[in-house]
Amino acid sequence: MTTVDISADLGESFGAYRLGDDEAMLDIVTSAHVACGFHAGDPQVMDRTVAACVARGVSVGAQPGFRDLVGFGRRAMEMTGHEITTDLIYQIGALRGFAAAHGTTVRHVSPHGSLANLAAVRADHAESIVDAVVAVDPAMTVVTQPGRLADAARVRGLRVAIVGYADRAYRDDGTLVPRAEPGSVLTDPDEVVERVRRMHVDGVVRTVTGRDIELRCDSLLVHGDTPGAVGLARRISAALRAAGVVLAALPAADV
Amino acid sequence: MTTVDISADLGESFGAYRLGDDEAMLDIVTSAHVACGFHAGDPQVMDRTVAACVARGVSVGAQPGFRDLVGFGRRAMEMTGHEITTDLIYQIGALRGFAAAHGTTVRHVSPHGSLANLAAVRADHAESIVDAVVAVDPAMTVVTQPGRLADAARVRGLRVAIVGYADRAYRDDGTLVPRAEPGSVLTDPDEVVERVRRMHVDGVVRTVTGRDIELRCDSLLVHGDTPGAVGLARRISAALRAAGVVLAALPAADV
Amino acid sequence: MTTVDISADLGESFGAYRLGDDEAMLDIVTSAHVACGFHAGDPQVMDRTVAACVARGVSVGAQPGFRDLVGFGRRAMEMTGHEITTDLIYQIGALRGFAAAHGTTVRHVSPHGSLANLAAVRADHAESIVDAVVAVDPAMTVVTQPGRLADAARVRGLRVAIVGYADRAYRDDGTLVPRAEPGSVLTDPDEVVERVRRMHVDGVVRTVTGRDIELRCDSLLVHGDTPGAVGLARRISAALRAAGVVLAALPAADV
Amino acid sequence: MTTVDISADLGESFGAYRLGDDEAMLDIVTSAHVACGFHAGDPQVMDRTVAACVARGVSVGAQPGFRDLVGFGRRAMEMTGHEITTDLIYQIGALRGFAAAHGTTVRHVSPHGSLANLAAVRADHAESIVDAVVAVDPAMTVVTQPGRLADAARVRGLRVAIVGYADRAYRDDGTLVPRAEPGSVLTDPDEVVERVRRMHVDGVVRTVTGRDIELRCDSLLVHGDTPGAVGLARRISAALRAAGVVLAALPAADV
Repeated sequence: MTTVDISADLGESFGAYRLGDDEAMLDIVTSAHVACGFHAGDPQVMDRTVAACVARGVSVGAQPGFRDLVGFGRRAMEMTGHEITTDLIYQIGALRGFAAAHGTTVRHVSPHGSLANLAAVRADHAESIVDAVVAVDPAMTVVTQPGRLADAARVRGLRVAIVGYADRAYRDDGTLVPRAEPGSVLTDPDEVVERVRRMHVDGVVRTVTGRDIELRCDSLLVHGDTPGAVGLARRISAALRAAGVVLAALPAADV
Repeated sequence: MTTVDISADLGESFGAYRLGDDEAMLDIVTSAHVACGFHAGDPQVMDRTVAACVARGVSVGAQPGFRDLVGFGRRAMEMTGHEITTDLIYQIGALRGFAAAHGTTVRHVSPHGSLANLAAVRADHAESIVDAVVAVDPAMTVVTQPGRLADAARVRGLRVAIVGYADRAYRDDGTLVPRAEPGSVLTDPDEVVERVRRMHVDGVVRTVTGRDIELRCDSLLVHGDTPGAVGLARRISAALRAAGVVLAALPAADV
Repeated sequence: MTTVDISADLGESFGAYRLGDDEAMLDIVTSAHVACGFHAGDPQVMDRTVAACVARGVSVGAQPGFRDLVGFGRRAMEMTGHEITTDLIYQIGALRGFAAAHGTTVRHVSPHGSLANLAAVRADHAESIVDAVVAVDPAMTVVTQPGRLADAARVRGLRVAIVGYADRAYRDDGTLVPRAEPGSVLTDPDEVVERVRRMHVDGVVRTVTGRDIELRCDSLLVHGDTPGAVGLARRISAALRAAGVVLAALPAADV
Repeated sequence: MTTVDISADLGESFGAYRLGDDEAMLDIVTSAHVACGFHAGDPQVMDRTVAACVARGVSVGAQPGFRDLVGFGRRAMEMTGHEITTDLIYQIGALRGFAAAHGTTVRHVSPHGSLANLAAVRADHAESIVDAVVAVDPAMTVVTQPGRLADAARVRGLRVAIVGYADRAYRDDGTLVPRAEPGSVLTDPDEVVERVRRMHVDGVVRTVTGRDIELRCDSLLVHGDTPGAVGLARRISAALRAAGVVLAALPAADV
């Protein structure tokens, strides 16, 4: 029997600005990647998001990003290892404040945007992120695409969960086609649902070149911030259950 | 035998900007009020400050303030209770991340600047601050001047430490003369040292009108961000020890 | 023949965050109050907004606000006169950069949110705002509700345009019912359209107490950031034209 | 007779944070590169700096940088051309607001930190910066080290002034030794004064490899933010005058 976590980026609103339909997504996901105020999110949003997770039994994780609100954390920034580690300790710590306030804990860390992309390919950045996780709470799982961050986390004894992207195109080496390239985002709902089914039932994904590559995926990421996204997430959830896949949050670390 | 905590606002540098001589002050104080990134401080500064506190056995406390870096948290802002509570959970949580990273805990909370002034006189703001402390960790002591915040914290069962100001003028009701008024800050070192001695040996302070009022003070605040401040802090520390006062961090709460 | 300017707050998006349907509103209004990056807006948004104004012949004005993005400029802040004046010079200057880039000029200044509310009742703030307008370009019109800012601007020889609110309730003294109070915002489209017609044809508005008070209004403000707002703005525009009112931007100052 | 402009980065303070001794430097320089609020500076600081320039007859220029206050604009950021152009229009426009307020104009633009470094080697960034200058006011001079930005500005018909660095080590290709490398900053005052004299009298500079390369320099940059910097700047100024070099701001463009 296959078990998979369904997750989404949540709590990305800021002040008067609303982004995504968090309420709807929280009824679908088993884990939430909560923005921590640097690239998105603010204290009131974080508080409401964690409270809503607790109310629904959704597992709370931190989604730290670059300190670049206007760029939504999607612009690469040249940072030292100490800058990355301390920016992450700060953001994860802040979210843990809200977790404590609502009687839960931060169970995983999933870097956002450009930081996530860099962590997959740069060993130094991967190490800086792992330093932060180890420093704050080594019981947290690192949720990431395959690559340097996953490798570094395993070496340091952290639990790692590989994230699969429902609506993003893959290259033959298992990395994502960058957003700037054509065909990077899948828009046909039937195609998305079918590829998600194959990911979890057959353990493979078809790449942009048409090859099937093996892809073990512990957590399936769905998006909630585009028109039709919530409906698509509901279809994916239903298709997985119909295929006998059990939807459940990542297991807690044995620390 | 009288015991008193000597404390200072620390970690107020930001990026390329340096404020105060933290290294020198850390050799004098027994407790640190560490800025948390909203009115001052940044993640690297917080990390270095907490590390330096741990290295010297200085007790770490949070100094949350208004989200107003350019105003240094000194400008009053009209905020809702939920905004204040969540801004404080965020800031205290962030500092707790660094405390965890360095093997210590955040032992007290001491609001900064305009937030501190408002909390002393507005019951609603006092309540919002206490909500945050209770939500994150009720073992933390609330360090404050006498007033609404002290009252609200006691009602909710929190430990309260009254802060005394070495170099600020007092009014007859025990509140501070606002910075904008003449004579609000004492500049004669001999006068400052003598008033500190009287505070702790006789339990009184002379007000701007020349009256002696009773002032119980658990934590004596010294400043490090002005020329000569460190030398003054050293003199105060020496004078207190010469008068038989024991300098020690606030006792931990029995929670 | 009555002439009126129809205006809206525009350019309030920020980074990945979209607010309001600027494209639709720009087809309705004759003047735009463009956010300048402190409470809303960013350089890319400002550039696109000014370009769109120029393409449609919409008059460009600055809408400066408090430096409080997370609070959307709606929280009162205690500021000195120099802080207010320089914050406004900065914001107006920045917008003038985009105006120059697109071959137009900034023709008016209309403070936003809490700054606007304070300027209507506080003579010192009104003076600080006027100082900024005079310093940067005294040919700019000050667009404001009746009150201290209008008075101060007239005394200093600036052109003043009184703004009327299509969907906000008025008190007997001609000021707005604060948003926090019930009934502050009108939601019945027929009622809004009828009150706008009376404002411009009869020169009166009915207050919350049921009295008709005289209200001269040079610029009618419509909102674009709520569901149905664009449709309502279109109805108002059509009703005014049907009543023989000419819609046109505020006349340029004779400076 | 050789004429040279002496310039410095000024107005880099922010809120309660003071950086550099602007008052002393303004008595030495003929041109000021004024920070515009993104990497340093705030509206009050900009106002005071421009006022002080006007009072001393110092030419005012804009020093725009990356929107990264905590990193002081020294961290490379991956930005689109439109982001760079609009960030610069915003910053230059804001400074022009203060110039208008004090009866002067912004005469040049000199990018700061990482943006300046990237503009010297990346043609796309250089073009984006030139777009902003042309859009706002093509009479402004572009002040830069030799490289892509200088090339792009000349192609577009802008006046270019080459900046020389008094205390930075040069490589054989005329670019600066990066700050991260050893020996990048010269600290011996006699050496700095002698190399500045050779720059302006002989037109050469000795590189890190010991070679003399030709270096035409229209504007000599001195720093004011390090201990002893002001004294060094005074010595440089005196040495140049003693060598018969005339100190004067860059000539105005004939536009």
